[in-house]
Amino acid sequence: MRIYFSKTQMDHRPTQYGVHGRLVRPLENPDRAGTLLESLGRLGLAAEEPPAAGRAAIERVHPGHYVDFLEGAFDRFQALPNAGPEVLPNVHPYFAAATPYGVSPLANGARPEPRTTGILGQAGWYIGDLSCAMTEGTARAALASAASAVAAARSVLAGDGEAFALCRPPGHHAYADRASGFCFLNNAAIAAETLRETFARVAIIDFDTHHGDGTQTIFYARDDVFFGSVHTDPFAYYPHFLGHGDERGTGAGDGCNLNLPLAFGSGDGEFLSAVETLVGAATRFGAEALVISAGWDAHRDDPLSRLDVSGAAYPKIGEILGKAGLPSVIVQEGGYSLAAVSETAPAFVEAFLAARPG
Amino acid sequence: MRIYFSKTQMDHRPTQYGVHGRLVRPLENPDRAGTLLESLGRLGLAAEEPPAAGRAAIERVHPGHYVDFLEGAFDRFQALPNAGPEVLPNVHPYFAAATPYGVSPLANGARPEPRTTGILGQAGWYIGDLSCAMTEGTARAALASAASAVAAARSVLAGDGEAFALCRPPGHHAYADRASGFCFLNNAAIAAETLRETFARVAIIDFDTHHGDGTQTIFYARDDVFFGSVHTDPFAYYPHFLGHGDERGTGAGDGCNLNLPLAFGSGDGEFLSAVETLVGAATRFGAEALVISAGWDAHRDDPLSRLDVSGAAYPKIGEILGKAGLPSVIVQEGGYSLAAVSETAPAFVEAFLAARPG
Repeated sequence: MRIYFSKTQMDHRPTQYGVHGRLVRPLENPDRAGTLLESLGRLGLAAEEPPAAGRAAIERVHPGHYVDFLEGAFDRFQALPNAGPEVLPNVHPYFAAATPYGVSPLANGARPEPRTTGILGQAGWYIGDLSCAMTEGTARAALASAASAVAAARSVLAGDGEAFALCRPPGHHAYADRASGFCFLNNAAIAAETLRETFARVAIIDFDTHHGDGTQTIFYARDDVFFGSVHTDPFAYYPHFLGHGDERGTGAGDGCNLNLPLAFGSGDGEFLSAVETLVGAATRFGAEALVISAGWDAHRDDPLSRLDVSGAAYPKIGEILGKAGLPSVIVQEGGYSLAAVSETAPAFVEAFLAARPG
Repeated sequence: MRIYFSKTQMDHRPTQYGVHGRLVRPLENPDRAGTLLESLGRLGLAAEEPPAAGRAAIERVHPGHYVDFLEGAFDRFQALPNAGPEVLPNVHPYFAAATPYGVSPLANGARPEPRTTGILGQAGWYIGDLSCAMTEGTARAALASAASAVAAARSVLAGDGEAFALCRPPGHHAYADRASGFCFLNNAAIAAETLRETFARVAIIDFDTHHGDGTQTIFYARDDVFFGSVHTDPFAYYPHFLGHGDERGTGAGDGCNLNLPLAFGSGDGEFLSAVETLVGAATRFGAEALVISAGWDAHRDDPLSRLDVSGAAYPKIGEILGKAGLPSVIVQEGGYSLAAVSETAPAFVEAFLAARPG
């Protein structure tokens, strides 16, 4: 199996993360990628540098004005008087016409382009929280991360049964036009849109412990991309505002979204059963190819986990998803315990590959 | 003229304010109220303690679930692991169905009640930026500030020609269900709704240097309350997302909103001409009573000002508004140079009173 990763992805090096009323050191850091490379290397899998993705592949998901913002934000923000070391938003737009919230009249979930021309207003428009501090290399790293997703999808389009995009920064909380939750570009969505060049129907299955609110919203009105997610119940957990079981898609996309939120403390049984359910739903949807948003943070040792999933669950998740037998792009999402990542990621991959038909 | 102020309004004592990627000391602090009391005292005007406003007066503008949030937020936030000293939001909802943004299907601009039950998600839902750090006494102070606005409006309802609500924290950036821009409860909107008990048509004229985005949104679909504002062009200035000249109201409220944004560097001439225009529009609207959102921060010495308005403009603003001859509630908004406030507020009030008919 091919693995794609670019050293440029390490250029996102935030020093700040706002949570619980404090600015602290971020959990999402370059060490995560190093651990993944090392642990997958133990399986004899080495990463390849992806070619640059090009704007066209990115702009299938993200409007050009958003990508422009990401590319220019750091320099523009630094020009503010007494600017902090990184781009952090401090003022956010108010939207009152959103009913139900999170649902867009546009096919890819994007909002109108903001009228504000200043960097401070644009930072608040395009960045939704304090977990997306932008450093000098952030835009470059996010584009390289997306390039890994595109390269993995192209390898599958070229005939490989599966490929792994070692995406860091991750992507599933990125909306069409908003960074959130450590994510800037939605790598899984970009991979799915790339697969759509050949495959009429694509399913995204997301087993990160956080709901993939960005991915859901991007495809919420679409009937050609199914999104299914198992995650921690968002009532008092990130991403807080989306991920409920009654969010089933809208318009043409009605029925093409499936959320399986799990209560705090849920264990291997509930988690594996949910993954089985998601595979069944993707099959019934008629998926011809699969994007797997792979996070390792449901593991009970993860600092963000509120579930009780053990390391033993991950090879079983790999087996269930591998057995689905679909051309598959595995896209790296979260996972913040380096010890747990080092155990779960290779165990998942090994079992996934072993379960492949033929 | 009666002035209303409660010492409880001093209980909002934030130590943090996020701007330009840093947490710094807030400009909106209790000293501002002290300066206003002292400078109006030089005119022989002493403040009276307002009676408690009661929920009914507040809930004409703000839904009960928002007021409940404000009252409970500090204690709930403190219960988070490693909580910071004050409530600061770090994750905000994404709304995609808002077209045009800022416009609500509900009469008072409120969004649906959030589904998230956790304090972190609710903080992001109900607080829009990093300028509304909530301390132990913030909710109490905001309610007392609103009580000053209600008391001033009731004094006018009882027959006084004018009254001054020394509101601090200020209010015009507070939406029906969101704190923003140093503001928690929209004192001017609450005063206007109180005046509506007797007056069929009420105009709000806002000459703070920042657009009153909260007030505008609350009344945007209403034809019984006119909102007119002169302010700094928001293209690269707070509140960034609203305040453009083409925002004229919606539905029944179409034509009942008038924004007069001024370019950076505009001086007394442009500012006074805009105030004249607003009074003319309020008169044509058929206003029977006036709420004046009074900010002193267009003054060229204000640390936030991007205009070139001199101290000499303020007695002229007072004269123009006083001559309008309508029963009037003056509601304190911004102004962050204590020296400028100390000069402009009493000069405005003295000229306002001198210009009253009869």
